[in-house]
Amino acid sequence: MRGRFITFEGGEGCGKSTQLRLLAESLQNKGLEIVTTKEPGGTPTGQELRRILVTGDKNKLDPVAEALLYYADRRINMTQKVWPALDGGNWVLSDRFADSTVAYQYYGYNRQLAQEDLDRLYHLAVGDFRPDLTLILDIEPEKGLARSYHKAQSMEVKELRFEKKNLEFHKNLRNGFLKIAAAEPERCVVLNADKSIEALHREILNLVTKRFEV
Amino acid sequence: MRGRFITFEGGEGCGKSTQLRLLAESLQNKGLEIVTTKEPGGTPTGQELRRILVTGDKNKLDPVAEALLYYADRRINMTQKVWPALDGGNWVLSDRFADSTVAYQYYGYNRQLAQEDLDRLYHLAVGDFRPDLTLILDIEPEKGLARSYHKAQSMEVKELRFEKKNLEFHKNLRNGFLKIAAAEPERCVVLNADKSIEALHREILNLVTKRFEV
Repeated sequence: MRGRFITFEGGEGCGKSTQLRLLAESLQNKGLEIVTTKEPGGTPTGQELRRILVTGDKNKLDPVAEALLYYADRRINMTQKVWPALDGGNWVLSDRFADSTVAYQYYGYNRQLAQEDLDRLYHLAVGDFRPDLTLILDIEPEKGLARSYHKAQSMEVKELRFEKKNLEFHKNLRNGFLKIAAAEPERCVVLNADKSIEALHREILNLVTKRFEV
Repeated sequence: MRGRFITFEGGEGCGKSTQLRLLAESLQNKGLEIVTTKEPGGTPTGQELRRILVTGDKNKLDPVAEALLYYADRRINMTQKVWPALDGGNWVLSDRFADSTVAYQYYGYNRQLAQEDLDRLYHLAVGDFRPDLTLILDIEPEKGLARSYHKAQSMEVKELRFEKKNLEFHKNLRNGFLKIAAAEPERCVVLNADKSIEALHREILNLVTKRFEV
């Protein structure tokens, strides 16, 4: 049986990566085969694209170039990692997916791109495939950015290119995620991420086990 | 006055880079301000994309991922280098441009992509802008590939990812360039590249000086 594809979305410092790891552990304890991935950077080539996208000068890429690079990374990740894993019966948990491109490159930059262009890129790279569930971890940008900068202190390579963009950008993309969720309520669940790691994990695990009856 | 944008196209080992350099020198000697660029890799970020695209395993990227990466590189090159240079009155000579994406990713892979998808990527990344002149250097793939492998012997980083694809791929893309030229005879000129460097240079210089009256 084909596995489930669950995506974690949200602004900087919302706790996606931590929650993904905890959910993966809990589902593995239930006997499920779990593959985790992230965007950008789920593959070796993707790691090179990640460095281009999330490090360096905040203005080095415009929204169109970013969208093309994110979709290139996504295409590589889907064809080389996600689809083969799902076909093999694994569940795949992804730290970001296409909603991030809409939230950041469309809403974040205040609609400099046409949404239709992003829809076409989606269709070109991903086809009709959709996540089974998308968890949107919602937090005030000020709080998330503070977490993100704090975490970066211990990182060798500072992945802060988007954090450096102004607060309006981060407010725009947060509202973008909420609009995406409102438009697709069956696929997307918005969770208040301004709580303890353990409390949020219990909420997510409860939600996932009920929805997929595992 | 806005400068001219001249693109050099053709299969591996056709002599594009050499001819571009010679034309640049001749036009500079006429007092024109010339900027040269190449795809992929006309910018620092583009250089990182070039390494991904033209080195390593020949099968590491599928046609869709390649097309997205080439268009990302193109978008960065246009916005950061080509358009500013043209606006400043420079002429820009480019070693490859969008016709290569059609020839390689569409014809080379035997139409696994839809041409319409490439048209949309063009519009997204480049808009309505078109080269003023495209020189297609035509040579039998066997001869071009032999030149290319010979040149690679002296290169530190072997940029042979596409050379490693089979002969059918290279025959397909050569025919692709000829179809592109037939469809846009005003923009494209096909030149037989199986001759001496100096003879081909004289032909190109003659053609350019007549067309643009310089």
